[in-house]
Amino acid sequence: MIDCIFCRIVAGEIPATRVFEDADTIAFRDIHPAAPTHLLVIPKRHIASLEDVTGADCGILGRMLWNAQRAARAEGLADGGYRLVMNVGENAGQAVPHVHLHVLGGRPFSWPPG
Amino acid sequence: MIDCIFCRIVAGEIPATRVFEDADTIAFRDIHPAAPTHLLVIPKRHIASLEDVTGADCGILGRMLWNAQRAARAEGLADGGYRLVMNVGENAGQAVPHVHLHVLGGRPFSWPPG
Repeated sequence: MIDCIFCRIVAGEIPATRVFEDADTIAFRDIHPAAPTHLLVIPKRHIASLEDVTGADCGILGRMLWNAQRAARAEGLADGGYRLVMNVGENAGQAVPHVHLHVLGGRPFSWPPG
Repeated sequence: MIDCIFCRIVAGEIPATRVFEDADTIAFRDIHPAAPTHLLVIPKRHIASLEDVTGADCGILGRMLWNAQRAARAEGLADGGYRLVMNVGENAGQAVPHVHLHVLGGRPFSWPPG
């Protein structure tokens, strides 16, 4: 999608600091970090929201979670731990309409999660 | 795992209010809700942490995310939105060593997420 900021990051048209990439997903640093380490894992294919996925998308969803783990390990978060967050829609404050998984680490996280 | 509280919920040995179930996962209400709607989606198979998964587990991980969406819809959260959270390890406060995805809805959520 030409007007999607994350699709433009995938295409290399907008710069981002990539820390992990495979055939289907990329992980890059959030430009407004909410923790010492704050990554976003996104599918390269445009999917606006978790509300738009079907059972046929389980493969890419699973890879997002697995790759969140691999990106977290690459960032040295495995021992201390990390929090994954996906915002869906308005109440959650989903800021970009391209599915993304936040990977937050490097500090303790309180409960409730926002 | 006989000493895992979530495995015992899967087995029906500990009561839980199930709102969604398929062959591989169940969704049930958190007994300490942090939002008007607060579900946990877990794999029926024991996996202690996201740190324990491999690429072979992408299928079940993807189903967890898809089924979080389906459970959220069943709870009427699709229009308002919802937040998904997975805690991994100590910094995040992972309370039960069986992979679980929190589905929180029914109120606005602030940022940062804890």
